[in-house]
Amino acid sequence: MIEASDRVIISGYGKSWFVRATDGKFGTDIGLVDLEQLIGKEPGDVIVTHSGKELVIRLPRATDFFEFAKRSGAPMLPRDIGLVIGLTGMNKNDRVLDAGTGSGIAAIFFSGVAREVVSYERKEESAELARMTIRDAGILNLQVITGDILRESGAYDIVHLDLGLTPDHVRHAHALLSPGGYLASYSPFFEQMACAYDVGQGLFTEIAPYECIMRDIDRTDRGTRPSTRVCHSGYITVMRR
Amino acid sequence: MIEASDRVIISGYGKSWFVRATDGKFGTDIGLVDLEQLIGKEPGDVIVTHSGKELVIRLPRATDFFEFAKRSGAPMLPRDIGLVIGLTGMNKNDRVLDAGTGSGIAAIFFSGVAREVVSYERKEESAELARMTIRDAGILNLQVITGDILRESGAYDIVHLDLGLTPDHVRHAHALLSPGGYLASYSPFFEQMACAYDVGQGLFTEIAPYECIMRDIDRTDRGTRPSTRVCHSGYITVMRR
Amino acid sequence: MIEASDRVIISGYGKSWFVRATDGKFGTDIGLVDLEQLIGKEPGDVIVTHSGKELVIRLPRATDFFEFAKRSGAPMLPRDIGLVIGLTGMNKNDRVLDAGTGSGIAAIFFSGVAREVVSYERKEESAELARMTIRDAGILNLQVITGDILRESGAYDIVHLDLGLTPDHVRHAHALLSPGGYLASYSPFFEQMACAYDVGQGLFTEIAPYECIMRDIDRTDRGTRPSTRVCHSGYITVMRR
Amino acid sequence: MIEASDRVIISGYGKSWFVRATDGKFGTDIGLVDLEQLIGKEPGDVIVTHSGKELVIRLPRATDFFEFAKRSGAPMLPRDIGLVIGLTGMNKNDRVLDAGTGSGIAAIFFSGVAREVVSYERKEESAELARMTIRDAGILNLQVITGDILRESGAYDIVHLDLGLTPDHVRHAHALLSPGGYLASYSPFFEQMACAYDVGQGLFTEIAPYECIMRDIDRTDRGTRPSTRVCHSGYITVMRR
Repeated sequence: MIEASDRVIISGYGKSWFVRATDGKFGTDIGLVDLEQLIGKEPGDVIVTHSGKELVIRLPRATDFFEFAKRSGAPMLPRDIGLVIGLTGMNKNDRVLDAGTGSGIAAIFFSGVAREVVSYERKEESAELARMTIRDAGILNLQVITGDILRESGAYDIVHLDLGLTPDHVRHAHALLSPGGYLASYSPFFEQMACAYDVGQGLFTEIAPYECIMRDIDRTDRGTRPSTRVCHSGYITVMRR
Repeated sequence: MIEASDRVIISGYGKSWFVRATDGKFGTDIGLVDLEQLIGKEPGDVIVTHSGKELVIRLPRATDFFEFAKRSGAPMLPRDIGLVIGLTGMNKNDRVLDAGTGSGIAAIFFSGVAREVVSYERKEESAELARMTIRDAGILNLQVITGDILRESGAYDIVHLDLGLTPDHVRHAHALLSPGGYLASYSPFFEQMACAYDVGQGLFTEIAPYECIMRDIDRTDRGTRPSTRVCHSGYITVMRR
Repeated sequence: MIEASDRVIISGYGKSWFVRATDGKFGTDIGLVDLEQLIGKEPGDVIVTHSGKELVIRLPRATDFFEFAKRSGAPMLPRDIGLVIGLTGMNKNDRVLDAGTGSGIAAIFFSGVAREVVSYERKEESAELARMTIRDAGILNLQVITGDILRESGAYDIVHLDLGLTPDHVRHAHALLSPGGYLASYSPFFEQMACAYDVGQGLFTEIAPYECIMRDIDRTDRGTRPSTRVCHSGYITVMRR
Repeated sequence: MIEASDRVIISGYGKSWFVRATDGKFGTDIGLVDLEQLIGKEPGDVIVTHSGKELVIRLPRATDFFEFAKRSGAPMLPRDIGLVIGLTGMNKNDRVLDAGTGSGIAAIFFSGVAREVVSYERKEESAELARMTIRDAGILNLQVITGDILRESGAYDIVHLDLGLTPDHVRHAHALLSPGGYLASYSPFFEQMACAYDVGQGLFTEIAPYECIMRDIDRTDRGTRPSTRVCHSGYITVMRR
């Protein structure tokens, strides 16, 4: 049941809006929505605008937070987050350590998969923004810590690093991992992939650096072609303890 | 605690073996292992070979099943499975419908993330092999059904199709999805991506076809270069209801 | 020796200007240039601006025409033109047939390699603009014909097509080629590559469709990475008679 | 007219053979060919096998030498050679310097385009094999020198390097180039691209490093897909003096 101040998506007529169940009105191009009506509804229920249009209520997914959440920088893309999940086999038994939090998008995706996620962010402002998004999302198994991940001392199944990688990060991640656990390091830059690889040699049992070139396909009346837009996002280096 | 007939990984000295906790012995190149000793141990515990070498015991992850499970064909790669998870934001609240099961690898990955997975396979032999792997893995939230997915009538958050796609598959998937839910269709072939796209138009609110070109990076004394091996696996078309 | 009305490049201080040897002055940010002085000079000679800066004179190369020539649409990129030259082994004995001319850039590149180039363009305006560029460039072995390439009846070593391809184009190109000659069809779209391939089967002895994904590499203080800009230009289908 | 000891291609029934006009017989699966008959014929003429099958005679193109010439290592691919030609606008006025010769394939392609080509190879054995291929091909404007390219002191429009690149190579190439001329450095490895780029900064006016990912397209009854075979050949760094 949707409770006061929950975040929900209302959608219809090919559009979606990210709103909060609260008193007040929300203007859309198909009429005003009375947000208080959302409280007590169930996902899948319908809400009616002042002009009589029906909108379906649903809970936001991680992909919606990628679209709608406030950002403190360019977040990792869902495709790259998915690669980390797939290449590590991340699952609901896992304890995941993540840094840097940034806008919190990767950590939010991981929290929907893993048992528990701890995410480090050095900038207090970014950390606070991410915490706000996480509270909004009602996520309980994700903790954002302001500080340096090198100070962390827990035990983890997966460590995910998306930061200015140094050799210390690779060694520290190794020390925190359970046997069979994975370090996944993401970077747009070649040099950080090389750093991860070189330090990981000898420490980890398997090291696999990848580059992912993912392309949107444009299909129109003129024909079908790979989009000429963004087609490199980064290198992902996966290492197993 | 590891129980009789559980599957575990024992690893050490840079190698891993996929074994079952059962009576009997297992030969490795660093000495015989008495498999009965595994029963009652915890993940992270150590087992000693006849020649006195220590091996760490751990539970298999989805990535291990990709390596070690019996196959009835070429399974989807962890990277492509990860893309489906990332692009749909798959999470522990989701009911996922999957077809065709094949070796069961994608379904096993999904079962580690989602609340419940139902997977259809038309070939009885493949279905039975996948069921055996799933039992071995102790997975309880994944059911393999022998038959045609077009007969399924449940409600799902995500439908994943990796089969010879027809327009009926796209329409049927749409009918089974909750509002905000995703169809993800995977195919190595252009034509099936085009079919998914063309039928999906008008039915779904968002349609995003992608091609993923993922490359291993080779790093040796001679230099660093993208591997010249496999670099296309398939097209993934993601559509949202 | 540079003659009146020849096109030349003058360059220095990290910049280049595309000018004509004629009476008149040309303003640059390092001072005025008296263009009449260019007449009678040799490539490699120096010209001095009013403010005493030295600029080197050189003849334009095809790559300069790509940068500086007037365009009647998006021209083929030098890399794609190069692929056509490399994959067909284009050389100074070849007679080359080209269509559509467009801005004339591909034809200009080919004219620097081949013995003779004939290029068809259906739009009179584009044909005239290309002819102007070609006269400017002093190119004598390249003729632009306004009209439909299907009316051409000569014999060629190479036919290059960059137009809305139809089955007739493929059959006609085959008829015009010498034994061992090549048809190279360029298109940004999948469907035209498929058309070339399907019609070419049975007619040609070798058919090789390619996709080229070429990426600029960005190298800065932050690191090295493939540019996220354009990375698909088109499909090139090469067929040998 | 074909003269004694000239290399020619004879083709028909979907096959090609690379032969020499000389006394003796050549066995094909469609009958014996009397090679002496080739002498005095023209390209396009027909020769008849002992079993009465007709084969067309044609002169070899650079692409045929890529297929048929003896190799002393893995030659550069026609597509990469084409990129060098396109990105530098190589043409019949150019003097081209090339190293290392290797099997001579790149130099042979260049000799069909440029006015004159000089190619350096340090291994006498490779140089001699390349010279033999070049004599066979009747190429007169291409000279292979055994030795180190750093000893060369001529003036060139284009320098092409496909060797273990050192900073000295980049500086020396710059010194040999005319204003507006190009250095094109090819390497499968990232590190050599980075070396070219870093040394070229400050020396050259334009520096453009590229990576080319070229993929064969497989089109069969099952569907159309990029081949999973080789899709990285190398980095090409183009710099202009």
